[in-house]
Amino acid sequence: MAERIDPWGNGDVGDYQRLMDEFGIESMEPYQKKFSSNRYIRRRIVFGHRDFGAIAECIEKKKPYILMTGLMPSGKFHFGHKMVADHIIWHQSLGAVTYVCAADLEAYLMRGIPLAQAKDIALKEYVANYLALGMKPDVHFWLQSDYKVSYYRLRDVMSKEVTFNELKAIYGELSPGKIFSTLTQAADILHTQLPEFSGPKPTVVPVGIDQDPHIRLTRDIAGRLSHSYRLVTPGATYHTFMSGLSGGKMSSSNPASYIALTDSPKEARRKVMSAKTGGKATVEEQQKLGGSPEACSVYELLRYHLIEDDKELEDVHKRCISGRLLCGECKKACADRLEAFLIEHQKKYREAVKQLDRFMQK
Amino acid sequence: MAERIDPWGNGDVGDYQRLMDEFGIESMEPYQKKFSSNRYIRRRIVFGHRDFGAIAECIEKKKPYILMTGLMPSGKFHFGHKMVADHIIWHQSLGAVTYVCAADLEAYLMRGIPLAQAKDIALKEYVANYLALGMKPDVHFWLQSDYKVSYYRLRDVMSKEVTFNELKAIYGELSPGKIFSTLTQAADILHTQLPEFSGPKPTVVPVGIDQDPHIRLTRDIAGRLSHSYRLVTPGATYHTFMSGLSGGKMSSSNPASYIALTDSPKEARRKVMSAKTGGKATVEEQQKLGGSPEACSVYELLRYHLIEDDKELEDVHKRCISGRLLCGECKKACADRLEAFLIEHQKKYREAVKQLDRFMQK
Repeated sequence: MAERIDPWGNGDVGDYQRLMDEFGIESMEPYQKKFSSNRYIRRRIVFGHRDFGAIAECIEKKKPYILMTGLMPSGKFHFGHKMVADHIIWHQSLGAVTYVCAADLEAYLMRGIPLAQAKDIALKEYVANYLALGMKPDVHFWLQSDYKVSYYRLRDVMSKEVTFNELKAIYGELSPGKIFSTLTQAADILHTQLPEFSGPKPTVVPVGIDQDPHIRLTRDIAGRLSHSYRLVTPGATYHTFMSGLSGGKMSSSNPASYIALTDSPKEARRKVMSAKTGGKATVEEQQKLGGSPEACSVYELLRYHLIEDDKELEDVHKRCISGRLLCGECKKACADRLEAFLIEHQKKYREAVKQLDRFMQK
Repeated sequence: MAERIDPWGNGDVGDYQRLMDEFGIESMEPYQKKFSSNRYIRRRIVFGHRDFGAIAECIEKKKPYILMTGLMPSGKFHFGHKMVADHIIWHQSLGAVTYVCAADLEAYLMRGIPLAQAKDIALKEYVANYLALGMKPDVHFWLQSDYKVSYYRLRDVMSKEVTFNELKAIYGELSPGKIFSTLTQAADILHTQLPEFSGPKPTVVPVGIDQDPHIRLTRDIAGRLSHSYRLVTPGATYHTFMSGLSGGKMSSSNPASYIALTDSPKEARRKVMSAKTGGKATVEEQQKLGGSPEACSVYELLRYHLIEDDKELEDVHKRCISGRLLCGECKKACADRLEAFLIEHQKKYREAVKQLDRFMQK
């Protein structure tokens, strides 16, 4: 009997389940119907959580909560980033007080990117695309290297609450720079609840599951700080990652692996047309056996971004696995959608770039 | 043949010489005459230096230089602290741009003193006494936990320039809090030369010799930062420590070991009268063999603080070693001087406390 194929599923879902069991991450399933307006929750791309119950309650009762996320300013803004951006914007539209951190110190300490360059990337790549995608400009945005003193003070106070060995267990070999970087990340999440910022509130941090050790540490620190600060233990949602177009990981350091939101429509089309799919070696074989959408980077683009209607997506899925839809036709349809999206998006992007100065003055 | 007794010398001078040789600290002797207006330099209490030549040149040519010092807000301001304060005030009177840091983060991270309490001690004990001793209010004063963003940014940038092992070699077992604390100290010294502060300038940091490893590290870091910052390698002067009144070290945690500048004159007199001296077991023995001023905490009070005139001090020394001056008489004379000093100082101190609010607003 053939394995049951889940049209929304990801090839790695088995691995995710193991990690969830091991670390006590809960399933998002109970929230899938309630928050079906969110494509990523509905399609199990956001598949796990910690303490999302408190956030769901805030959304339902229209009580304020905090959404915090960070960006690593080290390359082009691509469709992997768009997934997170869409998710943030969804929370913002539901009333979340939204905090977005440009991790310029982390980029400097861990990757040697100069602070001025990191700021430039953060604004022109990330913030401008966020705004073009619909983020409201009332977002709290900051650079780790240029913020308020209470944020730095929190980081100092936290440095007393962690041991060298527990950091080592999470981050491997440590250096002073790495310790500064990790505690800065914890401050990014926790400072939002200080009285000078939004005060104690349920908080959600959307992350990839690889970030969970960091979420656990931050939750632990929040508890240890109770002698000095009133904080609600922050929660998180966990999402899957898009695969690279050329097979393997989607990575900022490999332009062939991603489509940037500022790629020219022509370049984007070219990348889709040469992307790795779940197709078979020959047309005959594929017509006979069908394709494998769960192993197809083109199907991922459709599922994550380019087809909003579930029935429409299911139709692509069915036609693929039955062998009726071949990769060439599918790629062409995907490229058409992509091109239309990019033309529209890049208009908004150019407008957003013009607003950056005003955004930063705010 | 009896060892030559140096009226200005300290019992530990041999140890200091060994440390100086080992770590390349130079003698202050060439500057003793030129800066004989400074009691501490003149009497070899400030005995060693690194790069003091550049400072001497600034003083002579009336060029600006930086004096940086830190205070540990963890107890009473006593005569050991007064020595450093007098030395700072002397530099300030010669035109040094004077930076004084309240190490409240260090007090919190290393000793668990709450930040609010540390601030209170820094102001009421240290700053008020500094002002009463003659420090001009144009001093740059800051709390490590409440300062400017470029200071915190410098600390972050520095965290990339040091290795875990070199910190360990200097500070022993490390914790994240200790790493934050040590890099904060380096930022205390180096930030003064940033464009937002005083710009690149020769800098002197007056310290006890036990602080030299830290000075060496900070000098090394200054060199490594040349990719991003223009900094003059900071120098230092090294002073001896006053002994405790009850024998052993003078320590903030043992009130019997020190006289605080806010001790009542009566209490101060009592402490002098019961202080450990270099006297012999019996009057007869002392009259025969003489006392040992180099091992006498009362003589130290006179030498460091209470007798400005060298001839007068030498007279006390001569009469002591000859056996003509007995400890009771000497203590009484010292207590009289001390009482007169404290009555006068505490008037100024009460005025200074009233000015603290205005000082902090500045």
